[in-house]
Amino acid sequence: MTDLSAPPFSSRHIGPSESEQQRMLEAVGFESVADLVAVAVPESIRAKDRLTLPAPAGETEAIAELRALADRNQVLTSMIGLGYHDTVTPAVIRRNLLENPGWYTAYTPYQPEISQGRLEALLNFQTVVSDLTGLPVAGASLLDEATAAAEAMTLARRAGTSKSAVFVVDADALPQTKAVLATRAEPLGITLVEHSLDGELPECFGVLVQYPGASGRLSDFRAVSAAAHEAGALVVAAADLLALTLVAAPGELGADIAVGSSQRFGVPFGFGGPHAAYMSVREGLQRQLPGRLVGVSVDADGDPAYRLALQTREQHIRREKATSNICTAQVLLAVIASMYAVYHGPEGLRRIAHRVHRHAAALAEGLRRAGVEVVHAEFFDTVLVRVPGRASAVVAAAAERGVNLWQVDADHVSIACDEKTGAAELATVRAAFGLPSTPSGAHTEVAGAADALPASLLRESAYLTHPVFHSHRSETAMLRYLRRLQDKDIALDRSMIPLGSCTMKLNATTEMEPITWPEFAAVHPYAPAAQAEGYLELIGTLERWLAEVTGYDAVSIQPNAGSQGEFAGLLAIRAYHRAGGDSGRDVCLIPSSAHGTNAASAVMAGMRVVVVACDSEGNVDLADLDAKIAKHRDALAAIMVTYPSTHGVYEESITEVCAKVHEAGGQVYVDGANLNALVGLAKPGEFGADVSHLNLHKTFCIPHGGGGPGVGPVAVRGHLAPYLPAHPLRDGSPVGPVSAAPYGSAGILPISWAYIRMMGSDGLTAATEQAILSANYLAKRLAPHYPVLYTGRGGLVAHECIIDLRPITKETGVTVDDVAKRLIDYGFHAPTMSFPVAGTLMIEPTESEDLGELDRFADAMIAIRGEIAKVASGDYDKTDNPLRNAPHTAESVSADEWHHPYTRTEAAYPLPSLRDGKYWVPVRRIDQAYGDRNLVCSCPPLEAYED
Amino acid sequence: MTDLSAPPFSSRHIGPSESEQQRMLEAVGFESVADLVAVAVPESIRAKDRLTLPAPAGETEAIAELRALADRNQVLTSMIGLGYHDTVTPAVIRRNLLENPGWYTAYTPYQPEISQGRLEALLNFQTVVSDLTGLPVAGASLLDEATAAAEAMTLARRAGTSKSAVFVVDADALPQTKAVLATRAEPLGITLVEHSLDGELPECFGVLVQYPGASGRLSDFRAVSAAAHEAGALVVAAADLLALTLVAAPGELGADIAVGSSQRFGVPFGFGGPHAAYMSVREGLQRQLPGRLVGVSVDADGDPAYRLALQTREQHIRREKATSNICTAQVLLAVIASMYAVYHGPEGLRRIAHRVHRHAAALAEGLRRAGVEVVHAEFFDTVLVRVPGRASAVVAAAAERGVNLWQVDADHVSIACDEKTGAAELATVRAAFGLPSTPSGAHTEVAGAADALPASLLRESAYLTHPVFHSHRSETAMLRYLRRLQDKDIALDRSMIPLGSCTMKLNATTEMEPITWPEFAAVHPYAPAAQAEGYLELIGTLERWLAEVTGYDAVSIQPNAGSQGEFAGLLAIRAYHRAGGDSGRDVCLIPSSAHGTNAASAVMAGMRVVVVACDSEGNVDLADLDAKIAKHRDALAAIMVTYPSTHGVYEESITEVCAKVHEAGGQVYVDGANLNALVGLAKPGEFGADVSHLNLHKTFCIPHGGGGPGVGPVAVRGHLAPYLPAHPLRDGSPVGPVSAAPYGSAGILPISWAYIRMMGSDGLTAATEQAILSANYLAKRLAPHYPVLYTGRGGLVAHECIIDLRPITKETGVTVDDVAKRLIDYGFHAPTMSFPVAGTLMIEPTESEDLGELDRFADAMIAIRGEIAKVASGDYDKTDNPLRNAPHTAESVSADEWHHPYTRTEAAYPLPSLRDGKYWVPVRRIDQAYGDRNLVCSCPPLEAYED
Repeated sequence: MTDLSAPPFSSRHIGPSESEQQRMLEAVGFESVADLVAVAVPESIRAKDRLTLPAPAGETEAIAELRALADRNQVLTSMIGLGYHDTVTPAVIRRNLLENPGWYTAYTPYQPEISQGRLEALLNFQTVVSDLTGLPVAGASLLDEATAAAEAMTLARRAGTSKSAVFVVDADALPQTKAVLATRAEPLGITLVEHSLDGELPECFGVLVQYPGASGRLSDFRAVSAAAHEAGALVVAAADLLALTLVAAPGELGADIAVGSSQRFGVPFGFGGPHAAYMSVREGLQRQLPGRLVGVSVDADGDPAYRLALQTREQHIRREKATSNICTAQVLLAVIASMYAVYHGPEGLRRIAHRVHRHAAALAEGLRRAGVEVVHAEFFDTVLVRVPGRASAVVAAAAERGVNLWQVDADHVSIACDEKTGAAELATVRAAFGLPSTPSGAHTEVAGAADALPASLLRESAYLTHPVFHSHRSETAMLRYLRRLQDKDIALDRSMIPLGSCTMKLNATTEMEPITWPEFAAVHPYAPAAQAEGYLELIGTLERWLAEVTGYDAVSIQPNAGSQGEFAGLLAIRAYHRAGGDSGRDVCLIPSSAHGTNAASAVMAGMRVVVVACDSEGNVDLADLDAKIAKHRDALAAIMVTYPSTHGVYEESITEVCAKVHEAGGQVYVDGANLNALVGLAKPGEFGADVSHLNLHKTFCIPHGGGGPGVGPVAVRGHLAPYLPAHPLRDGSPVGPVSAAPYGSAGILPISWAYIRMMGSDGLTAATEQAILSANYLAKRLAPHYPVLYTGRGGLVAHECIIDLRPITKETGVTVDDVAKRLIDYGFHAPTMSFPVAGTLMIEPTESEDLGELDRFADAMIAIRGEIAKVASGDYDKTDNPLRNAPHTAESVSADEWHHPYTRTEAAYPLPSLRDGKYWVPVRRIDQAYGDRNLVCSCPPLEAYED
Repeated sequence: MTDLSAPPFSSRHIGPSESEQQRMLEAVGFESVADLVAVAVPESIRAKDRLTLPAPAGETEAIAELRALADRNQVLTSMIGLGYHDTVTPAVIRRNLLENPGWYTAYTPYQPEISQGRLEALLNFQTVVSDLTGLPVAGASLLDEATAAAEAMTLARRAGTSKSAVFVVDADALPQTKAVLATRAEPLGITLVEHSLDGELPECFGVLVQYPGASGRLSDFRAVSAAAHEAGALVVAAADLLALTLVAAPGELGADIAVGSSQRFGVPFGFGGPHAAYMSVREGLQRQLPGRLVGVSVDADGDPAYRLALQTREQHIRREKATSNICTAQVLLAVIASMYAVYHGPEGLRRIAHRVHRHAAALAEGLRRAGVEVVHAEFFDTVLVRVPGRASAVVAAAAERGVNLWQVDADHVSIACDEKTGAAELATVRAAFGLPSTPSGAHTEVAGAADALPASLLRESAYLTHPVFHSHRSETAMLRYLRRLQDKDIALDRSMIPLGSCTMKLNATTEMEPITWPEFAAVHPYAPAAQAEGYLELIGTLERWLAEVTGYDAVSIQPNAGSQGEFAGLLAIRAYHRAGGDSGRDVCLIPSSAHGTNAASAVMAGMRVVVVACDSEGNVDLADLDAKIAKHRDALAAIMVTYPSTHGVYEESITEVCAKVHEAGGQVYVDGANLNALVGLAKPGEFGADVSHLNLHKTFCIPHGGGGPGVGPVAVRGHLAPYLPAHPLRDGSPVGPVSAAPYGSAGILPISWAYIRMMGSDGLTAATEQAILSANYLAKRLAPHYPVLYTGRGGLVAHECIIDLRPITKETGVTVDDVAKRLIDYGFHAPTMSFPVAGTLMIEPTESEDLGELDRFADAMIAIRGEIAKVASGDYDKTDNPLRNAPHTAESVSADEWHHPYTRTEAAYPLPSLRDGKYWVPVRRIDQAYGDRNLVCSCPPLEAYED
């Protein structure tokens, strides 16, 4: 009888149909996927059993279950504050950006020509930050305010002239910032000193000022700045962007660095994240900035074009010389925040800030008149009140009325106003204090109360003067601006993005839909646990499932990027060794093929990096490993390896590597970047590793968002479980938090939950198998045309393959860059360039691409090979050819004059299929060096675009 | 003190800022908007007071109120059936199509070059319908199944050879179909005869067979077809598309016409609509098809291209010769249904149908075994059971358990299975009958019960064999197909659509979001009223607000298109005259400038159309009006006028016109198409009219959806209120329903509710004022370059202006078509062409376009005027010029050979601003005549696209 059940979700997630899969198997030379896997994946690592997961749910069922979880979260009005403030995401931005795959499926803008839309948005973000903080150079977002503060701390240590090891932290800093600073300071030998900043400044290399303070207090820190600078120390201001529309900019008060969150610029709570943090610096520090920086350069026609600037600073380039492991940013959220500023403009932001302040002032005045003690006279949005012995009762009374306040201690309650606060909320707060809740009276107070901003701090400087912040004030104009930027870019909604090591798979709509439901989006990270039952159950379940998938015993989803997961994993190893009295173990072995972040994370965790060589096949050189172990046996803390290797191969020797390190007393860290080649087939926690981080934004379907958000859970075996990151506001652990929020980027965890829930054991395993088959299929199709580097057993690759352009470049002069840019003319995003081996392209098709798309990509690569052959044969000019001149804009191929020795058709339509719906790149090849020489990192004046 | 409140929604809806408005006023020569309005709008019609509406809500507040209304709807599992079946909208389609402004803000594809995406989708829809019904030509959707059946009835009368006035209706037809047929038959003198179709067929011109019947019964109607054809009558099959995947096609059983709903192909209930109905016909009837028909033609390069075929049939061309008033279709919903078929493919659809059927068969078998009487042995999805005296109790017991069944009468219950039905639902139904609800047992029954499809009806013919139904099976592939089609089109998310008479204003996200909330989307139209409290309150409120805005006493939102509103309004007039004993009044006066639908609606309402001349200013010729009234005084039923006139002018004489008609005993119908020029300033119900229809998809922000859905409420003064359309399943009235569902397209009414709620009196009035200012601003900018036809007092226009190309065409040969197509090269959708006057363009900017966009459009028009001047001066060739050759594809301007006497740059980038984000049209100018000569109305084989 016919199967009546709906096809499983996996049949929608996995691109090739059964018949397509059969054709691919034939091409690769296997009868079945099982046969292929049996050859490709070493028996020694194969998992014995199917994954123990619930039977897969259909999309409708999964949505119903998520709805039930969502309904167990209670959405109260939040007046908790503490770095997280409620905000209105403009609907036009939510629908057309946050809920739009044209934006959320885009990759990091490493290929700037096809990323001009999101680069422009990020430049707007940088301009917002730079203008508001009064510091000239701002980066394109960091992970959260607390880690941004930690990055600022290490920046201050590098850049300052003080030899002190002390970093002074404002006693009134946010609690999560203090905690993350502590986590980050200890391995680096930095001493944190808490200080009220009122008295004399201790000797230090830097000082962090919270502006306004966590208690709401707003004070002028010019004197602190002067004292710090006097001592050769740097001043970091952790500042609230909305407050800065009313009060003096940190740069005007002497700050060298400003950090903070842009969450309240339209980004939902999401129970803690993801939100974009920012950092800006004074002139002279720009080359020290961690993370990504967008700059303006020119393209081959001399027209302005955007791209990532100063990439030589970044961790993926600097590796063990890196000073930060920041890689993933929070692009999607930074773009939302930037668009919020574009939509409201400076007057709108100022009006919102003013409204927030007036409500806070009215609340304070009303309480004061009723005899309640208000602690600070000057504040922006947060009112701290003293109610001896009554704090808990007041907070409970407010919660009963639907409002969450913050209980500071038994005697103090703090109340933060935000964009949504109105007379009704003020009345509720008053009622919680047992005062008459007179909404009309409250209105009068709003009008009547005096401002509570210090006169010396009133902002006088202008901001957001660029036309982009004045031209999109109607919803129609905003909608079109979003569309225009989106259309400049290639994201997964156009064509495959075959990025090795990045796993650009389907981000299914059913996975994405719940994250903008208010019951998930509108929960404050410090809401009482009883109000977040749905979240806590979802998180617990997801952690269990991830443990099952990886073979580990415990998982923490707190790290909000892969780099933070690495750091958390290494901290666990460090703490484990120390607990065992092995505090001398500080050597971390890292193969030469590793991701750059590995080394950077190890340095941050206080370890010494020792590089292990790879053999000609790209595998760990066992002899060198033995030598390095022998040399560092007593100091050996860990080895960090990626599996399958960054060369895209299942190393046969992995179990041996693990055994050798264990035997020497070290721990094994397996980088989970390539987990998409393992799920359902092998478990790192079972084949020898002690700890891994996973990238939920690779293997588990969280979209890349144009360069973030990411989630990087850390998974450990039982002996390391006590050392997972904790959070001061939730629980305790020997290891402090690595992220600001207790559950990191909780708001996007429903995505991975839904993926696992809908795939089940068979679906997940089938996805892995298809990913392996697809990579081998592409390798097979491309091998006659390009050398394929590094294969494992049976001449097979894992889930990605590397093609080697070096001999071709040597012969013809055509570079890997030329091929990457020429692919744009064929409508494709380039594969990963020159990683892990310079001069190569690493291709990862993932399981989500159907055979038609794989063939289109292969056809493009083969056609490009034909073009290269013409360069070799002399049919094409050595320098004036379609490869070197790629990409070609519509403007360039329709120019009145055409002087190239190849035709316009060869330039624009090298394959006839391109005639239907061709992607037109908005700029020609971008001059990277020019942009670094002429650094411009905020919106350029319009004249720059004139011809 | 600074205003602390958020800027009102109206400041986002209205494009120009205050300073822009001031600049526009200066250009037009007024100090204030009030001054402008005082001159433009005749004092005689001005409303005395502000609108009595609630103070405007902000977006957040409006969403909260809609959420509260939504929460008052209860979403039960529906097993009611009766033409509406629950279905799963694939999430990828919901997010990227139904919730995507790139799709929903598009206009009707009258400009085919910029509509290739939605035209392809509609061609897919036609192919689905044609394949499944086994009839070669299908149209691009009708309003609902009941009106489609009525259209089929009149088609049969025109096309058949029988002289009978009888139309036979299957006694087992859907109740709403019977009711709408009755409404439509009476004015046309058609006698409806209900018949079981078992015995001898009465003499008739046509017969409608419900297939399967409303009771679920599935029977072979070959004998009925033979008898009908014998008698020269036509056979109409009202068929369920999903059932047709399993049973013989209507065309194979002798049907000449098939109609039905495509709702269950992924379109939510929406409490009754909007859903796309379909019609397909046998060879020979295609020129009789009502509504729109997409066909394949070729463009100027000979490449295949889609466009609307056979437009000479359509009402807007045929006017009083029209046989149907159908204008708006249900494009957005037809596109969803087509994509559902594309995503599932033939095997998927068949599997879904099979599953539905197996569950119905299992349910019947289980009930039978338990001793419950099942009425029909053969059925597809609906099981009719006889439970003497217990029907009400069973239905109540099911509802208690969360499932709605249908109580046919005191003794019968009907239970319809659908795509969502599973073992749990069957168990609940059993429980409602007092049987043990054994889910596992039910599973066994699904496996065990015999099929209940008649052997003679098993489908053998193939369907959906075209590759498009086999190529987009993964979510990734589906997503990209949707993106690719969307990118071919111009919608409001790219640029303004300055269509006179169509009011293409902002469709704000906040207005759109609630319509896909399950609480609005998932309510069956026949769900008990107690389960739809939120809907009923929203509808009641909206009807009251619309009455207030228009000055009428009562409103019905049932008509699901403007044409249906017109028909309902004329029926009310007809019924009123009859009730007063004036049954001889059947003359409807219509000015020569009227919309074509007016005349068509009058004919459908059994009236005789008498045309009244217009004077040279475009106003009603009062002398001719007097003459026509004198001639038809005793027979005068009504006059239908549009106000402001279709010429875009506030006629001074409107009150006089009304008085004259009233004096002669006639009623005044004011077409509400141009209501956007009146809201807040004047009320038709107060300045002399008795009845109007409104277009919620023009004035009240329901998006055009690429050509539907629309909503066309009818508004009347008190004396006509008793004659508003009723619905047999809700209440009674002397006038039957004009739409299938009691509340028409209820599912999209939250859009208009939200618009009025957020604008309030001042916002709505300001929008009208800005619309008038913007039209006059454009008229002022264009007047030096193009003659502006028809102005009213002070040389002002109303909310749109007509520019006259006729002298230019005469002088230069450049036609209105050339200008329209050339605008595409400038990135714009053309204004309304040749309506109401041939050789002109009618421009309506609406209030939502900001000054920047208005100026871009004016700049484009002026640049085009410069190009025309070059043709006149001989600088451009008379025939080979950028106007005549427009639009230019990227392919054409980048061709290797360029033989035109103008440059590529002149072709592609006539203005430098086009270099940023230019829209590239996918085809060149389309040959309309070729397509009509070579009619192809379903997906052409792929070879057609080969070069």
